[in-house]
Amino acid sequence: MAAVGKVKVGIIGSGFQADIHAASFQILPEEAEVVAVASPTRGHPEALAKKYGIPGVYHDYREMLKDRDIEMVTINAPNYLHCAMTRDIALAGKHVVCEKPLAMTLEECDEMIDVCRKQGVLLAYAEELFFTPKYLKAKEMADQGAFGRVYLVKQSEKHSGPHAGWFWDVEKSGGGVFMDMGCHGIAFCYWFLGQPKIKSVYCQMGIHAHAGKTKGEDNSICILEFENGAIGLVEDSWAKPGGMDDTAEIYGTGGVSYADLHMGNALPTFSEPGYGYAVEKAPSTQGWTYPVFEEHWNYGLPQELQHFARCVRGKETLRSTGEDGRVVQEALLAGYQSAGTGRKVELPFRPKGVKKPIDLWWNPLP
Amino acid sequence: MAAVGKVKVGIIGSGFQADIHAASFQILPEEAEVVAVASPTRGHPEALAKKYGIPGVYHDYREMLKDRDIEMVTINAPNYLHCAMTRDIALAGKHVVCEKPLAMTLEECDEMIDVCRKQGVLLAYAEELFFTPKYLKAKEMADQGAFGRVYLVKQSEKHSGPHAGWFWDVEKSGGGVFMDMGCHGIAFCYWFLGQPKIKSVYCQMGIHAHAGKTKGEDNSICILEFENGAIGLVEDSWAKPGGMDDTAEIYGTGGVSYADLHMGNALPTFSEPGYGYAVEKAPSTQGWTYPVFEEHWNYGLPQELQHFARCVRGKETLRSTGEDGRVVQEALLAGYQSAGTGRKVELPFRPKGVKKPIDLWWNPLP
Amino acid sequence: MAAVGKVKVGIIGSGFQADIHAASFQILPEEAEVVAVASPTRGHPEALAKKYGIPGVYHDYREMLKDRDIEMVTINAPNYLHCAMTRDIALAGKHVVCEKPLAMTLEECDEMIDVCRKQGVLLAYAEELFFTPKYLKAKEMADQGAFGRVYLVKQSEKHSGPHAGWFWDVEKSGGGVFMDMGCHGIAFCYWFLGQPKIKSVYCQMGIHAHAGKTKGEDNSICILEFENGAIGLVEDSWAKPGGMDDTAEIYGTGGVSYADLHMGNALPTFSEPGYGYAVEKAPSTQGWTYPVFEEHWNYGLPQELQHFARCVRGKETLRSTGEDGRVVQEALLAGYQSAGTGRKVELPFRPKGVKKPIDLWWNPLP
Amino acid sequence: MAAVGKVKVGIIGSGFQADIHAASFQILPEEAEVVAVASPTRGHPEALAKKYGIPGVYHDYREMLKDRDIEMVTINAPNYLHCAMTRDIALAGKHVVCEKPLAMTLEECDEMIDVCRKQGVLLAYAEELFFTPKYLKAKEMADQGAFGRVYLVKQSEKHSGPHAGWFWDVEKSGGGVFMDMGCHGIAFCYWFLGQPKIKSVYCQMGIHAHAGKTKGEDNSICILEFENGAIGLVEDSWAKPGGMDDTAEIYGTGGVSYADLHMGNALPTFSEPGYGYAVEKAPSTQGWTYPVFEEHWNYGLPQELQHFARCVRGKETLRSTGEDGRVVQEALLAGYQSAGTGRKVELPFRPKGVKKPIDLWWNPLP
Repeated sequence: MAAVGKVKVGIIGSGFQADIHAASFQILPEEAEVVAVASPTRGHPEALAKKYGIPGVYHDYREMLKDRDIEMVTINAPNYLHCAMTRDIALAGKHVVCEKPLAMTLEECDEMIDVCRKQGVLLAYAEELFFTPKYLKAKEMADQGAFGRVYLVKQSEKHSGPHAGWFWDVEKSGGGVFMDMGCHGIAFCYWFLGQPKIKSVYCQMGIHAHAGKTKGEDNSICILEFENGAIGLVEDSWAKPGGMDDTAEIYGTGGVSYADLHMGNALPTFSEPGYGYAVEKAPSTQGWTYPVFEEHWNYGLPQELQHFARCVRGKETLRSTGEDGRVVQEALLAGYQSAGTGRKVELPFRPKGVKKPIDLWWNPLP
Repeated sequence: MAAVGKVKVGIIGSGFQADIHAASFQILPEEAEVVAVASPTRGHPEALAKKYGIPGVYHDYREMLKDRDIEMVTINAPNYLHCAMTRDIALAGKHVVCEKPLAMTLEECDEMIDVCRKQGVLLAYAEELFFTPKYLKAKEMADQGAFGRVYLVKQSEKHSGPHAGWFWDVEKSGGGVFMDMGCHGIAFCYWFLGQPKIKSVYCQMGIHAHAGKTKGEDNSICILEFENGAIGLVEDSWAKPGGMDDTAEIYGTGGVSYADLHMGNALPTFSEPGYGYAVEKAPSTQGWTYPVFEEHWNYGLPQELQHFARCVRGKETLRSTGEDGRVVQEALLAGYQSAGTGRKVELPFRPKGVKKPIDLWWNPLP
Repeated sequence: MAAVGKVKVGIIGSGFQADIHAASFQILPEEAEVVAVASPTRGHPEALAKKYGIPGVYHDYREMLKDRDIEMVTINAPNYLHCAMTRDIALAGKHVVCEKPLAMTLEECDEMIDVCRKQGVLLAYAEELFFTPKYLKAKEMADQGAFGRVYLVKQSEKHSGPHAGWFWDVEKSGGGVFMDMGCHGIAFCYWFLGQPKIKSVYCQMGIHAHAGKTKGEDNSICILEFENGAIGLVEDSWAKPGGMDDTAEIYGTGGVSYADLHMGNALPTFSEPGYGYAVEKAPSTQGWTYPVFEEHWNYGLPQELQHFARCVRGKETLRSTGEDGRVVQEALLAGYQSAGTGRKVELPFRPKGVKKPIDLWWNPLP
Repeated sequence: MAAVGKVKVGIIGSGFQADIHAASFQILPEEAEVVAVASPTRGHPEALAKKYGIPGVYHDYREMLKDRDIEMVTINAPNYLHCAMTRDIALAGKHVVCEKPLAMTLEECDEMIDVCRKQGVLLAYAEELFFTPKYLKAKEMADQGAFGRVYLVKQSEKHSGPHAGWFWDVEKSGGGVFMDMGCHGIAFCYWFLGQPKIKSVYCQMGIHAHAGKTKGEDNSICILEFENGAIGLVEDSWAKPGGMDDTAEIYGTGGVSYADLHMGNALPTFSEPGYGYAVEKAPSTQGWTYPVFEEHWNYGLPQELQHFARCVRGKETLRSTGEDGRVVQEALLAGYQSAGTGRKVELPFRPKGVKKPIDLWWNPLP
């Protein structure tokens, strides 16, 4: 494993998110190259490998970890596997990029952070919103004082439901849309405000459109109170028709800004015949649509993964760490507890023995 | 008092809201005419009377109530006076139009409703959002099934703070922005969804920009749960720079709609020299602005007041009643109690002996 | 014919535009009432009369003109009939409201103006853009100096083609989209700039989508040069899919403004099931749509017709006259001549013996 | 000069555009590196070199051309110097990237194309709109049939006037805004439609805001007719207050699309204190602004220059050639001739002995 040249990357997973990783490394090829992909379903990693010209294919990621050239492994797997995979990767001496949310429990988060620290490998938490160009511009403006004192940050992500089947199975995901996308909004508010401590979490959640399909909540509204007096409002939905929505709003005593990644970047378009692709989760390309361009880039995905590769080479310092993921995890747990009790939950909130976050919605701690 | 011809109207108040009433009756003059204005501050009612050609001027509204020709009186006065004025008007045998919120307490609401019922006069609750053309279109679409089952309704009103001084004095207003504009959002969600019972209220509030000026909250976020499973999300602020904001969003299992009364109706404009008027609370007309046109009309104010006049003539049935105002009042009280406890408050919530709603934020009931 | 009370109106026509007139008089009922409708097609005027509660029905408008109570008649008929109808109405001593464009030729315009002047009746030119609330706001701002010196005014109207069959028959319409809607844009620029003389007209036109259906142009781009140095850019199309479009843009040395009557006022909406009505010419209410609210009002149609009624009563002075229509007519003729020669046409341009404007495109004068 | 590794680039110029080139090569550093900058004004190239870490500094570009390592030279110099510089670069055996417009005359264009062909070097025409991500998406959709047959393409670029002084001197620039930015719109329509022959050009131009500063037109409207029946409408202005504007619109028989690079990608923002940077030519960052993010990227500038470097390495085929620049040049000349005569100019139009395009506006050929 030579610490020069492009960082050699192995990808765990072959679904929607793994494809995004492979595509992202191709968009910014200077710092890293994907050399292997591992996924248990026969045919799937082969297809991804073919699509992106990836030489190595494995059906067991533990086999892939034996490849001495691989320096960094990205985890695109159900949440309940994150911890074990991270441990295996770290013990193999490779850097870890773990998709959000970090894990199922705080105990797992701690273990992941510990094992990586002990093994001297990076634990990168794949929160792409820290790299989203439009959001970065908003933060840059905030840091320049554009809004005076920021007292409210809103972030929202909404669509009609996830691609992969395991998201709908709370045993594998740990929860519904709040677990899946609420983690983005929590991380965003925390990051945007400069990482002040989270004081309390309140969360309202329900199953409105997909009761037949999942026990996970498909809509959530979460209010965060931060130590510095600012408020975060995080809205997420798997029950929103009409295509993907990802927005942020910043309110300060001296200004406001509205950042809309989709309708706000798109080409308003009417098409009778339709065309190739509009935007994630768009039900059609006929009629009026809001096609986006350079979708991965405008989320910041290639930039995020390039950053992680540069961190491996010591060129940059990790901007999204396992510790950040742990902060988010605590807020997620507090959110489910809050939804279960109808009460704002004060942090620190470190419940013991919780198997999966959504259990706290159904059976909150006393 | 002849029940034919135009309804003769008396206006209580001579400030910002009274001016809107006078202007609105002029925009739609067919059903009603303002014949008198009453306001204690010498010079103020005279100025309003001159501006709108109103013949009668009083400094004590009780004097005005002696005018036998007046059939309907509109109250544009601090919240703590609503109940007493309503009683006086009703006892004078005249119909009442009361600005929002209906009163300070549920006891007052009950008294207002009772006295009007006994006197056989209308108690119209001046919720103009029931008459806002863009919002009416959204509701019409919802009622046609455009969105499938609506599970989330959002309404938000934000600006930099109210015109009249009494709003900042919680003894006169009963509370801050949640009392002032939260009542709009609560009414809107309730109305839009077809008046289902409100099951619970959660509210987060704080003083972010105006701590030196008021003890009232200047920012609030309120989550309503309705009996039919739908959610309301009501956001209000007196701490939003850049001009007035009034928006609603509708989310259903089959569709979504976004209604923006200001930026969404405006003429995006850049002006170096500036010009007459852009929009309520806009700090300037220079640089980029979002001027609106026919502001009163697009809120539905003339339509609302004309409707009330037509109800007086029996041509229409009241679409915004004292009872509606009472529903809102209960949710307001529950919101303050919730902000004070950090807990969702289940309705019915009928606290006894509360002097003003904001007391529940500071000293919630056990 | 008593010059008191509401102005009694007769409508000629029973199609799309006649319906708009009937609806508009109902929206603002204070000044006028429709008492009769005349249209030759059996069943059509009956249907309109039923829909709007109009007492009088005629199949020959000349019969309707015998009704002594009628004071004002609105013409919603093919362009080639405007002149004869105006003459008949004026000779019957009634005021004329003529839909745009005024006529087929300048000779007809002159005759219409003359006969009305001699008979002492008003000849109102139904250009609703002079009454469109959003456009009025832009003009008000311009007149307040918001844009410094205005050097460019753009107006555009685009949709997929007209409702009534006669528009497609150039013998009855005199031309295609430039005749149908270019007249709006020409009038708009002229009015917005304060009625400076038109110095020259250049026009590019073609048949792009409807060659099988009409000999009239279905797309036109027209550049006007005004005496004061300002430029008008007028774009019109019958070949624009996706629903109606009506926009104006103002460019001055000190500012700019963008006014969009449809997408710019609408509620961006996604609907799987669809709903009642989105906007004129919208092909569907499913998927993403831009529904508008109070469509007639936002065009200014009720306001326009109310104004005409008030002019009949002497309460206001005509803001859109036969002379204005004649100015537009000359520019229309110059536009067709220009399209035929590929040259800018200097005004005055008063060709003799032209039967219909579009003839100049096919056979321009030397 | 080794044809391996990164392409070594020399930049001529040290102003606004040269800075963009230097910045763009840094954004996508994989294929090329800037090794030298040449500009006559003492201090200027030094400053650029310092800002971007460029090792070589020259005050005479001919000295820079002696550097054997340099393989590609980009010209950011007044238009009247393009031809001589291209000749010198080509004769030095280096590839040429020439900023738009290609030259002053068709004779110069021919000479530039010839000398590069003879020397076996690339003549890349720096039309970045061929690389603009949002415009590429529109073209991709068009090529997929989204709009049916495209019959109208619009492109517009407007701001308050250029940075560098020479643009205002028509002896150095050859003309005003039509020369400066009309070339973008002409190239865009031509490219978007798949490079059909241009049949005719009509152009209206005037000096509306900057008569005291330049003899060049500061506003132009240009209509292109293409051989395939489609129309191009190109609008440009140096007289538009409020910041940069760059938009395209596509109209087809089956659909429409609107692409707005600035307001349409921006974060609508209100700021009392202001902040670092909003967008090119924005007069302020206070009040309402439309800040953009990744401005160079969203124009496609890094992508364009990377493409040119890849062409030098034979990895891609030139997508914007000297021949394309020549097509645009002919249309520019035709446009000025048209503005001078008030007539549509049919192509081919190859006037002899024209010193600079704007001469044809003042003294058109007979």
